[in-house]
Amino acid sequence: MTNPFFINNGPFGLNKILELIDFDNKDFNYKEPIKDIRDLISADKDCITFFHSKKYKELAYNTKASFCITTNSLKQHLPPSCKSIVVENVLITTAKITGKFYPESITDNFDITTKNICETIFNDTVIYGKNVLIGKNVKIGKNCHIGNNSIIEKNVHIGDNCYIGSNSLIRNSLIHNNVNILDNCVIGKKGFGFFPNNISNIRYPHIGKVIIYDNSEIGCGATIDRGSMSDTIIGKNTYLDNQIHIAHNVKIGNNSIIAGQVGIAGSTIIGNNVKIGGQAGISGHLRIGNNVEIAGGSGVIKDIPDNCKVMGYPAKNIREFLRENK
Amino acid sequence: MTNPFFINNGPFGLNKILELIDFDNKDFNYKEPIKDIRDLISADKDCITFFHSKKYKELAYNTKASFCITTNSLKQHLPPSCKSIVVENVLITTAKITGKFYPESITDNFDITTKNICETIFNDTVIYGKNVLIGKNVKIGKNCHIGNNSIIEKNVHIGDNCYIGSNSLIRNSLIHNNVNILDNCVIGKKGFGFFPNNISNIRYPHIGKVIIYDNSEIGCGATIDRGSMSDTIIGKNTYLDNQIHIAHNVKIGNNSIIAGQVGIAGSTIIGNNVKIGGQAGISGHLRIGNNVEIAGGSGVIKDIPDNCKVMGYPAKNIREFLRENK
Amino acid sequence: MTNPFFINNGPFGLNKILELIDFDNKDFNYKEPIKDIRDLISADKDCITFFHSKKYKELAYNTKASFCITTNSLKQHLPPSCKSIVVENVLITTAKITGKFYPESITDNFDITTKNICETIFNDTVIYGKNVLIGKNVKIGKNCHIGNNSIIEKNVHIGDNCYIGSNSLIRNSLIHNNVNILDNCVIGKKGFGFFPNNISNIRYPHIGKVIIYDNSEIGCGATIDRGSMSDTIIGKNTYLDNQIHIAHNVKIGNNSIIAGQVGIAGSTIIGNNVKIGGQAGISGHLRIGNNVEIAGGSGVIKDIPDNCKVMGYPAKNIREFLRENK
Repeated sequence: MTNPFFINNGPFGLNKILELIDFDNKDFNYKEPIKDIRDLISADKDCITFFHSKKYKELAYNTKASFCITTNSLKQHLPPSCKSIVVENVLITTAKITGKFYPESITDNFDITTKNICETIFNDTVIYGKNVLIGKNVKIGKNCHIGNNSIIEKNVHIGDNCYIGSNSLIRNSLIHNNVNILDNCVIGKKGFGFFPNNISNIRYPHIGKVIIYDNSEIGCGATIDRGSMSDTIIGKNTYLDNQIHIAHNVKIGNNSIIAGQVGIAGSTIIGNNVKIGGQAGISGHLRIGNNVEIAGGSGVIKDIPDNCKVMGYPAKNIREFLRENK
Repeated sequence: MTNPFFINNGPFGLNKILELIDFDNKDFNYKEPIKDIRDLISADKDCITFFHSKKYKELAYNTKASFCITTNSLKQHLPPSCKSIVVENVLITTAKITGKFYPESITDNFDITTKNICETIFNDTVIYGKNVLIGKNVKIGKNCHIGNNSIIEKNVHIGDNCYIGSNSLIRNSLIHNNVNILDNCVIGKKGFGFFPNNISNIRYPHIGKVIIYDNSEIGCGATIDRGSMSDTIIGKNTYLDNQIHIAHNVKIGNNSIIAGQVGIAGSTIIGNNVKIGGQAGISGHLRIGNNVEIAGGSGVIKDIPDNCKVMGYPAKNIREFLRENK
Repeated sequence: MTNPFFINNGPFGLNKILELIDFDNKDFNYKEPIKDIRDLISADKDCITFFHSKKYKELAYNTKASFCITTNSLKQHLPPSCKSIVVENVLITTAKITGKFYPESITDNFDITTKNICETIFNDTVIYGKNVLIGKNVKIGKNCHIGNNSIIEKNVHIGDNCYIGSNSLIRNSLIHNNVNILDNCVIGKKGFGFFPNNISNIRYPHIGKVIIYDNSEIGCGATIDRGSMSDTIIGKNTYLDNQIHIAHNVKIGNNSIIAGQVGIAGSTIIGNNVKIGGQAGISGHLRIGNNVEIAGGSGVIKDIPDNCKVMGYPAKNIREFLRENK
């Protein structure tokens, strides 16, 4: 799938890519252009991919990519059609190459191209406040409202019957129908992903987007960061209260309810019909099942299966927690 | 008391109301118009009220309302003058009827009627920044300042000597004298109240307001939601630090001090001279007494009597907590 | 050192100062003007200083100030060259005198003097969005970007290659080179410092600033308060995620990483290479060493030596915490 929002500066010759990462390429004799960098599943034959953890070994074995950034110990899991490019740090190397294909995905400078909405095609179709700005590649459906001082930067598609509050900023996002985004939100900025370095950290490219499905509501002061290589997703009819932070690559299911000041760290996946109480925090890279209830103030540091109710820090079975803390 | 901010679309005939909630009305023969929906205490003879929990049975027995939405098991507590309308879910039914009387209280679309302050009567009386917007039914007293990009939407009364910062948004609020509201606040939006429903949640009307009494200060990035059937109240000389979330119907007393990132869930009542440390969270529907001290980071899940000092999650006596956690 | 941002309304005669604090001055016979109020270290001979805690007794003994606000039990630690002014509450008295020298440091009214950037000398040198406002005494280096609706109030110096997002507000701050400040931030407002008083609290003057060193990044929705008598400092190449609150006088070292929704209370000092997980809270007046790691959600209530990893509330050794909470 072509990235809908970030312009791919490729293709590049393999040599150019290997030069960028200081890789000695004498073993390859490949003249075709490399079209894109993608994850193991979505990479085609003319793509480069990356493989950095054993838990993806089955995906690695089935990748169609011709080249894969990986480590010496992981390269054995790649199929014969995929040549390994062995490096010390897979993710730093992947970040460098992704940055070459998508240079605009690294930083998040404000969108200099925005215009006042009254100078755009939305003048007649959107109900809007004062000082509303619209960037390039923006689509807005029927019967939408956008409040005062809100900024829809480039690469935003908004469906029908959406209500955007005042002082909100949206970029790189797909907003479906009947979605409410309240005031003072920042949706679609790059995530907090980088490689520490003692002089100046290396920022990780964020070529993903934020997707918010039908009938959802995002409370005031939310920050929802866009994904790095995948997307950040809010499911259908899921409601977020005020001051919530959703980090990059998080995926939340349908019909979930998240109370004020909750924070969800990067790449965590949350099921359907989940209820999360105020100020709860969820660590990164976890899986929270369907119908889970997390009490307010809890700190979740491991996966939670379907239908569980948890409380505490670290969060455990709620009955057990309350019994121990009478 | 007439609602000062939300326009009552009534009166309505009883039949119209009962149709809305799919109630079979053959037992009633009442021709008078129903003027309003109010709580058990403030309802008059020409009002409909609601009664959903045993703990209000004394109030129910003394209500003056002619009709009451309630359940089969609660209806026995009503006086003979009040006819019961028995439904499955009192609150959903109440929400539907309230929405009929006050349709504007359900959603929180931005106020399309705002004008730049320089086009209003406040041009000469208020010291204001660039791009300040003022809605309908706004009153502002003497010697007030309003910073750049702040929006005072409809239904806001501000007293004398108030300082509103920049990028703040206020609606449906009564601000008394000498109040400071700093930057990036959202005051008076609807609360996070709705009935979950698998296709599209049913929003609860919020016909209350936010009241901030004399000499108080609200820090940057605060969200203070207005009440649903009652008001959200910040007492006199109470100071809130940055990034605090106050949910609907919360009432905070006088001379209280609340540090950064505290969250207080809906309908909790907090006394006078209360100190709450940073990042503490307080569950909904609790009573926190006077002179209570809650240590930073605590999670309060039950009532706290006067003069107690608590810490921990769940919060307990601070000495006990510190002894157990040496 | 002269305060670069707040105008000193002095000098004042000693009598005027003593009258302000209702001090009976018959014992003094000093005719020289008092130039400034400063801390024990930076005060010169023509300054007044303050001394309120035993832990500063060595600094007190070496002060060059001619006068010192202090208590009866502490005055013995002052050198003969420094006359004690014994009061009941050193900090309230200091606040009163500081307010006389620096009246503008007490409140944080919006800066009425800002102009649209297109009317300033930065029109040609800065890349800027719509509705960008600039106050007095602002310097901006080469190749800087400032997003839509951002306000640079008075007393801000920004270095080269800085990126300021949209809807952000900065005042009283020194921003060095290559700094990114994202959207919806409030940097440099007065801290949450005051003396409780049952009618109307007494605000503490904040004559410090915020300093952000090279290559750092401040996430969306941050609030970083300026110092009261000292500065609030973010070291080099330190990255803050979204919705972080940094209180007055906090000092954070270099190469540190602070995840979303962290709160750091006033006057805490944090070393280099520190990692703080999401939603962690750190109490005020603590010292956190170098290379410390604080797990997400932790509550830190005492000093942490170099190289420790902690977790829990109150935070303790991470291994111990995890063993006890399996």
